[in-house]
Amino acid sequence: MSRNIIVGQSGGPTAVINSSLAGVFQGAKDLGATKIYGMRNGIEGLLDEQYIDMSEYLKGDIDVEILKRTPSAFLGSCRFKLPTYEKSPETYDRIIEVLRKLDISHFFYIGGNDSMDTIKQLSQYAKEKNITDITFMGVPKTIDNDLAVTDHTPGFGSAAKYIGTTIKELSRDCVVQPIDVVTIVEIMGRNAGWLTASAALARGEDSDGADLIYLPEKVFEMDKFLAKIEEVRKTKKQVLVAVSEGVKTADGKYVCEAASSNMMVDSFGHKALSGTATALADVVKSHFGCKTRPIEFSTIQRCASHIASLTDVNEAFLVGYRVVKAAFEGETGKVGIYVRVSNKPYLMNTDIYDVNAIANVEKTVPENWIINDGTYVSEEALDYMRPLIQGESYPYMVNGLPKHIRL
Amino acid sequence: MSRNIIVGQSGGPTAVINSSLAGVFQGAKDLGATKIYGMRNGIEGLLDEQYIDMSEYLKGDIDVEILKRTPSAFLGSCRFKLPTYEKSPETYDRIIEVLRKLDISHFFYIGGNDSMDTIKQLSQYAKEKNITDITFMGVPKTIDNDLAVTDHTPGFGSAAKYIGTTIKELSRDCVVQPIDVVTIVEIMGRNAGWLTASAALARGEDSDGADLIYLPEKVFEMDKFLAKIEEVRKTKKQVLVAVSEGVKTADGKYVCEAASSNMMVDSFGHKALSGTATALADVVKSHFGCKTRPIEFSTIQRCASHIASLTDVNEAFLVGYRVVKAAFEGETGKVGIYVRVSNKPYLMNTDIYDVNAIANVEKTVPENWIINDGTYVSEEALDYMRPLIQGESYPYMVNGLPKHIRL
Repeated sequence: MSRNIIVGQSGGPTAVINSSLAGVFQGAKDLGATKIYGMRNGIEGLLDEQYIDMSEYLKGDIDVEILKRTPSAFLGSCRFKLPTYEKSPETYDRIIEVLRKLDISHFFYIGGNDSMDTIKQLSQYAKEKNITDITFMGVPKTIDNDLAVTDHTPGFGSAAKYIGTTIKELSRDCVVQPIDVVTIVEIMGRNAGWLTASAALARGEDSDGADLIYLPEKVFEMDKFLAKIEEVRKTKKQVLVAVSEGVKTADGKYVCEAASSNMMVDSFGHKALSGTATALADVVKSHFGCKTRPIEFSTIQRCASHIASLTDVNEAFLVGYRVVKAAFEGETGKVGIYVRVSNKPYLMNTDIYDVNAIANVEKTVPENWIINDGTYVSEEALDYMRPLIQGESYPYMVNGLPKHIRL
Repeated sequence: MSRNIIVGQSGGPTAVINSSLAGVFQGAKDLGATKIYGMRNGIEGLLDEQYIDMSEYLKGDIDVEILKRTPSAFLGSCRFKLPTYEKSPETYDRIIEVLRKLDISHFFYIGGNDSMDTIKQLSQYAKEKNITDITFMGVPKTIDNDLAVTDHTPGFGSAAKYIGTTIKELSRDCVVQPIDVVTIVEIMGRNAGWLTASAALARGEDSDGADLIYLPEKVFEMDKFLAKIEEVRKTKKQVLVAVSEGVKTADGKYVCEAASSNMMVDSFGHKALSGTATALADVVKSHFGCKTRPIEFSTIQRCASHIASLTDVNEAFLVGYRVVKAAFEGETGKVGIYVRVSNKPYLMNTDIYDVNAIANVEKTVPENWIINDGTYVSEEALDYMRPLIQGESYPYMVNGLPKHIRL
């Protein structure tokens, strides 16, 4: 039996999405795949027959290791929203046509919520059309940590480690001048505050970290925000605030909407947010008359593989490998997940789970983990996050800079 | 003879200013200092008799090593501009009074251009007043690399390594979606383009790095800028531009001035710049109608000690140590400098030099190192910078994050 597989990457990049790709590649290779194809730019490229033979790029173990340490999607990504079968049967026919051409038996898609919807629809379609010789499996990925069922997502730990590290460094920088400064750091996560919560990791005996943390799970109230800053300013000249890009006021408007005039909307209808930190800094400056410093972690937070979490890199590899194994055992319409067997000590297992329970479901930070009147996260939240940032996966440094692999 | 010393840190933080502090401390300790004091917040704190006994904080070798790996100024910094003697003789009298109280024989100040001016004025004052029992010595520091005489400055190499690394990572992120995007990265350096030039380090067999690089040494022409982007867009969907925060148009105005309304001015008369990337991204978006992504490296670039250059950390320590040695040998009114004995192989020596040649002189990128019609830097520039980012000084990681030391 031929075992040609194809794998694609979709959605926003992470520091470890290529580690999952390496896991799929290595798993497929170890478990006897004949050909291992990679879609260029996900489904969008596949429809256009844009693919590569991955073995031509990954010629030995060192290439696989470099791939694990290369940020962003090696194969390229896309934000293609697969239309429903009812709306566009020809898209489904075309996908199957291309897969048949390559004699594909296993299809893997590495991505977040939207990508898992692709797996859901393709596996449903296959079932309805009685296509039994191609499996469709998902490998989770997102810095946002907002996927259901899985304990956490590949990519979250590394972004959280970057955020914790950088908040620690910034907190040193913030206090250096003997003047009043309010620094406001804007962190990714539209609807789920996991990444913003990770700013709390920076606090410890050697750092105050962030003084206040605002997640999108809670309604943002400007008056209370200013009152909290005033409270901190009673004991400290310098205040460090971490705020999610997605915080909204009671009327459902993004805090940054007042400031940003030209927002763009992507193909999933997501608004491209920017300027929450800047908007808040302006309010703080005019209210307190003090110096403010808005800082956006921007896309750097999702591609900073130079400070990736070793736990995250290893787990991302494992879950990719595990999904291949399950597919080769006949599973379809499933997604790889993490199961936390124990927290202290941290023991993690991989498993697979029905995609229907995962696609299009958004997991946010639990209500009771958000404390101090919506300005910090609980010890329970820290206990949950801490194991995920352990260990360092340093790049292979060549001539002073990280070595990457590219097409 | 009593050998009490006092050391202060001044100006903007760097990733290695504490390594120089560690070098001063270790040098003073090794060479027989009785007491090693640290000014809190530089001269500003000294005038207020705010100081610490450093031995109370650095109790062993491990503390010194952690100090070398802690970003920003351990002692706190200031932006205090020492008035001339003519304008404020009482300030000078007060400084000497506090130094006499502590029985100080050697005064060290770690900082950039403005701080070297402090050393210049204090040593001149001492000379004129025939104060022969206190020496005044400077230790260089600035990410901007704009100090005269010295081959390069402590702090530059680590900031350049961060910039090179992050540009490489961002260049992977930029190309991931199959859409037209112009990413504009704003880098520190008001008048000297050294840091922006370091974006060129990212280019190599595995990365295009930045496609265009704009330094403040050249007049910025919007028409030519848009034409260059158009040229790049002929062969690439995604363009990555690195631009100095300090680029100016022919009329001497900062490019960001059009966008920023509320600029602040610090006590040296420096304008606080922000928004050059945002301003340019807006122009590009309306001109080409494509997606743009402005990214500010912000203060992160000066405190990212988690990816510090080992060369920089070691040299910063050495030059601090060397200045102490020179002071103990009777030198005053001098600054530590780097002398590049050889480039290939890279061999560096430390020396000391007359502060009058260094204070208030700004070293910019040589005209002939700026090539491609002002949009890139030469091989000579790269040869100069490359040795400075070699080696990694990774933090001591504790519980997943860098360990720092603080007062």
